[in-house]
Amino acid sequence: GDIAAGREAARQCMACHGLDGLARQPDAGNLAGQTEIYLREQLKAYRSGKRRHPQMNVIAQGLSDEQIEDLAAWYSAIEIEVRMPE
Amino acid sequence: GDIAAGREAARQCMACHGLDGLARQPDAGNLAGQTEIYLREQLKAYRSGKRRHPQMNVIAQGLSDEQIEDLAAWYSAIEIEVRMPE
Repeated sequence: GDIAAGREAARQCMACHGLDGLARQPDAGNLAGQTEIYLREQLKAYRSGKRRHPQMNVIAQGLSDEQIEDLAAWYSAIEIEVRMPE
Repeated sequence: GDIAAGREAARQCMACHGLDGLARQPDAGNLAGQTEIYLREQLKAYRSGKRRHPQMNVIAQGLSDEQIEDLAAWYSAIEIEVRMPE
């Protein structure tokens, strides 16, 4: 997918997931650094209804395959570093 | 949930999700820094079958409410930093 196009498409995701992929809502997932495969599969599952969520099913039904590829490219391009508690 | 108990319980998650919450398999999600609410809801959805995945449904059916709370405590306690592409 196209990262720049994905960043643009992510404007509809920002309210819950952030442009940076850090969840802004407690029941939303972090998308930052998820793999392209994972992001593609989840968006397609929301689009087909295989995975159910009131807002995500509606949003995903408005996404083309190309937009799914671009969103997967954007969020997977975000680098993440982790620090485990001692 | 109890972070130390969660770290222990995470030994059964490590192969795909890592102890640090960074996916070790391309179709597995990153768990690091997800919110406790998100982690709890997804594990309960896998346990009840509301969310379907061949391995996760089986693994989650073996989890008690307490283990779910502990796993949610562990993975949500991992701090993440993100860096967006320019």
